[in-house]
Amino acid sequence: MAATVHSLLLQNPNHSSTILKNPYSNIAFPSQSVNFMTPTRSNKSLCITCTTQVQDLSTTAPASQSQDRVFNFAAGPATLPENVLKKAESELYNWRGCGMSVMEMSHRGKEFLSIIQKAEADLRALLNIPEEYAVLFLQGGATTQFAAVPLNLCKPEDPVDYLVTGSWGDKAFKEAQKFCKSNVIWSGKSDKYTKIPSFDELEQNPDAKYLHICANETIHGVEFKEYPTPKNKDRILVADMSSNFCSKPVDVSKFGIIYAGAQKNVGPSGVTVVIIRKDLIGNAQPITPVMLDYKIHAENNSLYNTPPCYGIYMCGLVFEDLLAQGGLVEIEKKNKKKAEILYQTIDESGGFYRCPVDKSVRSLMNVPFTLEKSDLEAEFIKEAAKEKMVQLKGHRSVGGMRASIYNAMPLAGVEKLVAFMKDFQARHA
Amino acid sequence: MAATVHSLLLQNPNHSSTILKNPYSNIAFPSQSVNFMTPTRSNKSLCITCTTQVQDLSTTAPASQSQDRVFNFAAGPATLPENVLKKAESELYNWRGCGMSVMEMSHRGKEFLSIIQKAEADLRALLNIPEEYAVLFLQGGATTQFAAVPLNLCKPEDPVDYLVTGSWGDKAFKEAQKFCKSNVIWSGKSDKYTKIPSFDELEQNPDAKYLHICANETIHGVEFKEYPTPKNKDRILVADMSSNFCSKPVDVSKFGIIYAGAQKNVGPSGVTVVIIRKDLIGNAQPITPVMLDYKIHAENNSLYNTPPCYGIYMCGLVFEDLLAQGGLVEIEKKNKKKAEILYQTIDESGGFYRCPVDKSVRSLMNVPFTLEKSDLEAEFIKEAAKEKMVQLKGHRSVGGMRASIYNAMPLAGVEKLVAFMKDFQARHA
Repeated sequence: MAATVHSLLLQNPNHSSTILKNPYSNIAFPSQSVNFMTPTRSNKSLCITCTTQVQDLSTTAPASQSQDRVFNFAAGPATLPENVLKKAESELYNWRGCGMSVMEMSHRGKEFLSIIQKAEADLRALLNIPEEYAVLFLQGGATTQFAAVPLNLCKPEDPVDYLVTGSWGDKAFKEAQKFCKSNVIWSGKSDKYTKIPSFDELEQNPDAKYLHICANETIHGVEFKEYPTPKNKDRILVADMSSNFCSKPVDVSKFGIIYAGAQKNVGPSGVTVVIIRKDLIGNAQPITPVMLDYKIHAENNSLYNTPPCYGIYMCGLVFEDLLAQGGLVEIEKKNKKKAEILYQTIDESGGFYRCPVDKSVRSLMNVPFTLEKSDLEAEFIKEAAKEKMVQLKGHRSVGGMRASIYNAMPLAGVEKLVAFMKDFQARHA
Repeated sequence: MAATVHSLLLQNPNHSSTILKNPYSNIAFPSQSVNFMTPTRSNKSLCITCTTQVQDLSTTAPASQSQDRVFNFAAGPATLPENVLKKAESELYNWRGCGMSVMEMSHRGKEFLSIIQKAEADLRALLNIPEEYAVLFLQGGATTQFAAVPLNLCKPEDPVDYLVTGSWGDKAFKEAQKFCKSNVIWSGKSDKYTKIPSFDELEQNPDAKYLHICANETIHGVEFKEYPTPKNKDRILVADMSSNFCSKPVDVSKFGIIYAGAQKNVGPSGVTVVIIRKDLIGNAQPITPVMLDYKIHAENNSLYNTPPCYGIYMCGLVFEDLLAQGGLVEIEKKNKKKAEILYQTIDESGGFYRCPVDKSVRSLMNVPFTLEKSDLEAEFIKEAAKEKMVQLKGHRSVGGMRASIYNAMPLAGVEKLVAFMKDFQARHA
């Protein structure tokens, strides 16, 4: 029941200039567009002051509130586009004049139907998803799909192949063991998950129901640049794309199933996107919980029970933003640029920083690195946090550092990190 | 990166007076309190204008934005407390100065840990949950629990008892058939789900692993006022409380498991709360998907994989608000008052409106009713929507009307509905 007008005064303490602008010019009213300007960032920290005169100044409302953003290198949930957050903020209380928050809408009402349908249409446009694939918005994360995939595609006695290039692929393999005869055809474990094998040397089982890969290993920073051709009878390749989903173009027609938790590149946690070739739907094992049966969700357009509505809405805003940026070809260019300067800094540090991953399969999304002097790692993380760069600590299972630089991490964030790394090295080499 | 100050000018076109106030006085800065004023509502529609003078007026920002709320009688997702939405709006972009949205936080970071721990602590306080119960924040809705309950409590050959008082109890029973020997010990289907039997007449199986009820049937408006004593060997009562969770005090110690989708009384969709006696954890069937295994979630404090962080945050805000209102004793009083005036209007309409449910078990949450002249129902719904009362159409399986009047539906909303019903009757009797 409140009407708001926002103003923004950016004041850089290192310069006497001030910048005053209103980033809300085209979002205060209901709008499909997210093309408004993203505030620019610099390596300098900004002091932000807001000065607004209101008609009644008798209240105790504070005149300013720091809204400094950090650069958040978390592996997921992860940083989201600022303009998407601003749009969500502007619509949270009353979505486009309907008198409700998206969080309050019946999932069967016309408002939410328009949201989920647009989200699907935009995702289809982004990934050029063929008509013969269903798009499902589900819950439970990739971990739920680790069970759903074999439960839907296999009988208990069916063999399946897993190519294991990191912890997530290994977890997927282990979960599948409950529901079919899952088999590891290659594992990078002995090399501490730093490689992807030549596809020629893989011994695929021709009787396998599918070949499973994890397209990008979030913890180990290993990413498939090409995909193996499944040699099983039905030519089914299944990919967990949680941590590189929508980070680059993908030929969906090469896959039987693509699944991804949203919380890396396309939204908040709580939404799992499943893209599945329709002819693979409808053969779930009798012991499949109804919520893991793709047929139920496909027949009901992801509305069998109440979906995670607000998360789907947020994903929709991100899809819209990715399209507005020019689609995944443009996104991939940006991601390559960011990864390039970070890996270059590591490789040119003379061993001060090290990335253990084979250069040919280094992830554009998750960049793990260690310090030659490992006793400096805690100091590195502490100093970075002081500079408003957070969540750089590596996964507890591998140690060291990890910078996750998903779609929404601006180039400025990576530039700031790289500058910091060089400075840190100069001071500690 | 924007700093905001909000002002609110309420102008009632039916009166010449204007009200100017700032509802943000104690939320613009990080705060644990949600005790700020909720804007009052009246039956008159309000014209809302915002006038804010900012230093730079050269932008094209609109000077006003309608933020009229509707009264939303949806069965779920459902209306949320206005002050909770306002608090969420104020914190969306930058949670309490940490430089991130809650949607961007690592679920293992200190910020989110503080959120989920406070949510659990507040829920424990609200429901006085004994120490020997675990509280889990999961995904997948009650429908996922329909499978998880038998998978965790039974072997495939174990018998279990279901007392079926509506569609949801029936769905729970059917899903359990996949995983154990589920048996309906009583069904209200022949009476179109309008009754709950005397507990004395129930023929419980002493060998059953548990007795399952749906504490409030959302579609049929049938609510348990007392609970049956389980006569099975282990004395385990399991309740789906999705649609009356936290609407009144409950003696948790009477239950083995209570589960509830959040999207009725305590938050947005995408979060399921499970309260389970700890000794029941740890016996899942081998075919249990890891995400349905209570042991995994209990051992990891609901952080085995990425939880639905933003939804949990929203639930936390609602729990905080319920405590601030005086807890569930006070909430129940408010809910009884709202239900009372609505049922009274139906019962005193001389048959113009009818509620088919036995008076002794009428739900305080979901009030289904029909019109004697059923051809007027479409007109009723249309006119109500014009008056900004939405989602009054009954579930497609039962027809008629349904007013869901959960915790967050203000008394003013029910008063407005009742006044409308009387007026509608006067015009159409």
